Amino acid sequence: MNKKMIIYILGKMLGVEGALLLIPALVSLIYGEKTGVSFLIVAAVLGVIFLIFGRKKPKNSRIYGKEGFAIVGLAWILWSLFGSIPFVITGSVPNYIDAFFETVSGFTTTGSTILQEIESLPMGINFWRCFTHWIGGMGVLVFVMMVTSLGDENAMPLMRAEVPGPESDKLVPKARSTAKILYQMYFVLTAAEVVLLMFGGMNLYDALVHSFSTAGTGGFSNRNSSVAFYDSAYIDGVITVFMILFGINFNLYFLLLLKNWKSVLKNEELRAYLGIIAAAVAVITVNILSIYENVFHAFRYASFQVASVITTTGFYTADFELWPELSKVVLLTIMFIGACAGSTGGGIKVCRFVILCKSIRQEIRKILHPNVVTMVKINGKKVSNDTMRGINTFFAAYIFILVMSVLIVSVDNFDFATSFSGVLTTINNVGPGISKVGPVENFHMFSPLSKLVFCFDMLVGRLEIFPYLLLLSPDLWRRRF
Amino acid sequence: MNKKMIIYILGKMLGVEGALLLIPALVSLIYGEKTGVSFLIVAAVLGVIFLIFGRKKPKNSRIYGKEGFAIVGLAWILWSLFGSIPFVITGSVPNYIDAFFETVSGFTTTGSTILQEIESLPMGINFWRCFTHWIGGMGVLVFVMMVTSLGDENAMPLMRAEVPGPESDKLVPKARSTAKILYQMYFVLTAAEVVLLMFGGMNLYDALVHSFSTAGTGGFSNRNSSVAFYDSAYIDGVITVFMILFGINFNLYFLLLLKNWKSVLKNEELRAYLGIIAAAVAVITVNILSIYENVFHAFRYASFQVASVITTTGFYTADFELWPELSKVVLLTIMFIGACAGSTGGGIKVCRFVILCKSIRQEIRKILHPNVVTMVKINGKKVSNDTMRGINTFFAAYIFILVMSVLIVSVDNFDFATSFSGVLTTINNVGPGISKVGPVENFHMFSPLSKLVFCFDMLVGRLEIFPYLLLLSPDLWRRRF
Repeated sequence: MNKKMIIYILGKMLGVEGALLLIPALVSLIYGEKTGVSFLIVAAVLGVIFLIFGRKKPKNSRIYGKEGFAIVGLAWILWSLFGSIPFVITGSVPNYIDAFFETVSGFTTTGSTILQEIESLPMGINFWRCFTHWIGGMGVLVFVMMVTSLGDENAMPLMRAEVPGPESDKLVPKARSTAKILYQMYFVLTAAEVVLLMFGGMNLYDALVHSFSTAGTGGFSNRNSSVAFYDSAYIDGVITVFMILFGINFNLYFLLLLKNWKSVLKNEELRAYLGIIAAAVAVITVNILSIYENVFHAFRYASFQVASVITTTGFYTADFELWPELSKVVLLTIMFIGACAGSTGGGIKVCRFVILCKSIRQEIRKILHPNVVTMVKINGKKVSNDTMRGINTFFAAYIFILVMSVLIVSVDNFDFATSFSGVLTTINNVGPGISKVGPVENFHMFSPLSKLVFCFDMLVGRLEIFPYLLLLSPDLWRRRF
Repeated sequence: MNKKMIIYILGKMLGVEGALLLIPALVSLIYGEKTGVSFLIVAAVLGVIFLIFGRKKPKNSRIYGKEGFAIVGLAWILWSLFGSIPFVITGSVPNYIDAFFETVSGFTTTGSTILQEIESLPMGINFWRCFTHWIGGMGVLVFVMMVTSLGDENAMPLMRAEVPGPESDKLVPKARSTAKILYQMYFVLTAAEVVLLMFGGMNLYDALVHSFSTAGTGGFSNRNSSVAFYDSAYIDGVITVFMILFGINFNLYFLLLLKNWKSVLKNEELRAYLGIIAAAVAVITVNILSIYENVFHAFRYASFQVASVITTTGFYTADFELWPELSKVVLLTIMFIGACAGSTGGGIKVCRFVILCKSIRQEIRKILHPNVVTMVKINGKKVSNDTMRGINTFFAAYIFILVMSVLIVSVDNFDFATSFSGVLTTINNVGPGISKVGPVENFHMFSPLSKLVFCFDMLVGRLEIFPYLLLLSPDLWRRRF
């Protein structure tokens, strides 16, 4: 375990967070808010930490998979610990655990909130809330990798630990260039959304924060009633489309840039993703028809909500807590499936879901023809045994953490739908659940213990479990390798 | 696919059911009930079917795994289809779908009921309800295997398809002898419970039906208020102990007969099973302390309920719907885990759960030491890759069916806790759930579609999924092999 290198990279990384905090400070300055000083204080502290730990590269600079997981796991916790301080200093969220919850929810692009009143927050604070989504969406480490100089052999373990999905590919031979390409596409898509939202009459600030939230598939809004505030079919439509776009594997956009249409159209995960969206929208539209004036309205609210939940964004335009049970269970189901691997979305990922379904079919074939060699393929490529085992273990660990979390949260004695959907929505980085954590409700009423469990679930969900299981494993810390 | 052999064995099997129906007919005769004639009618029909299909053995009598799964899958449906007729003829359950639900619930040892009034049923009918638990517990095919002559090479595929658990062993070289030994132990344990219950003041009839229910880990009772009716700490205690005993792998009893104490005490599944029970009882006892007069009472109700749920029996002595959320979620969690492999209980089985947990630990080790060869062991034996894959696929298929079932059942628009726990309790063959399917409630209010989904879940749960996935697979029927 190369501890020196871990501390060095973490130091660097906190320096980057310090620099990022200057952006909301600037926003505060523009709006003449004195609270902007809080960002500067934290930025200064982080600057000092950077100067102490993040400047001198250790002699032995080689890191491997285990260091990658450890760095990623610790990085997200540290960013959240420091990122939550401005909320406390400005008095926007006086309680530190609440502020930590809000920041973890931001970076992990969950979008669950403990705030009951959002519109009265300072502009700088609301900007920071939504900006954390944007940074967290593509990955804080990927961001650090892009702006600092880490050797390529050190960058891959980090990327593998942070980018969601069962396998992570480099788009181009160099990890750092891959990070740059990813962020460029991310930036262009976000900018396009900002422009389109402004066409719909949003001001620049609202367009920016909502685009950050969409891009990171986060879900924070600067409006108490989320996107429902604008009550505009055009804005709903734009955000629906962009949520779906940000739920797609970014590698596919790279293939589009290379004009490799065929691979994109044949991509099984993309097909399954769009198929599930279409099916869910159809079922919910029919199911809620009696509540709305006409099919168009039902379709508009159904498609927005499906896109919001499957991509694990968590915006809402309708209080789906009032929809029939079937619609709510459809939403819980797609919450569980989540978006595509390699996107900014959470959940178990469509790709894993497809592979699991195929492995069930394979098992049936094996029983029918015991002597035939069968294999699970995706996009024409055989799924390796290692990947398969990884997916299965991921799935088991996911269900295990889900169950344990529901157990602890149920100590607070809220109804089962609240505890269960609260855990499901945080571990999948969605945002709202059903019942008492429904779209127009929030997480303020939980005990501090439950809030910490939710924070753990959000982090575990965003980083796909293993970094934190590793951090909790005594093996990691006990011995020297 | 040896279709002739499938029909032959199914014919034989229905003949055995016809013979078994003579037992409740005898009970009706003893109590002077005219309704006993209903059993004789069905027995006669089954006798004719046996004479037509079950007498002449086809020339090619060899069957393999796929025929085994097909026979087992169809056998359970046919037994339930015919076994439900007496309920309809006697008017005890006028609606056929309800009667089918009740019979499937009986054979699969689930114990969920659509009946609101049980005590007024004819004695013969109540006997038949509980007797189906006893037959279904050890397996209808295993029973048929024991009483008819099937070559050993044909018996193993059936046994493998029907006996719960990731691997099935023969206790002795011959499958038929294994079946006999299993039933002998089953019979002795059941008889012991009858005697002990009669010591507690139960009459022979009540002692018999409750012992059948306990032995099969079913849960039907001839009392509206289940075991709470007797309000006796002694009876609660006896049933608690026997429920736990019937949740243990029967192979271990065989090892006890051979005086192989060491293997029994070292058995990891048994240790985990008892450990989970102890932990669950401890948590619930503390959690419900304020509801009951003293620790003893709390412990009595907690231990009974934990034993009832983890073994998937489903008796109750307290309305746990009134317990705090934590206790309810603990019950849902152990419902999900279930009893030991090779017992009469349902659920995912402790053994699979232990192996899944170990595979998570193994994955963490693999990340820490990528070059070290690691393996999952249970009871000192390596878990083969095939078994591991089988467990993973089982788990994925289980969650998949669970989610799809909750989706369909939620069309009925009951609250989430009702739909979710209804599916969970049926797929795990427990009986009661929480909310509107809580212990003092029942399943009568669901739509026929939902009832059929529950029937499917009960069968799928009892036979551990694959026989039915196979029956639904077009591959099975399309081609000749």
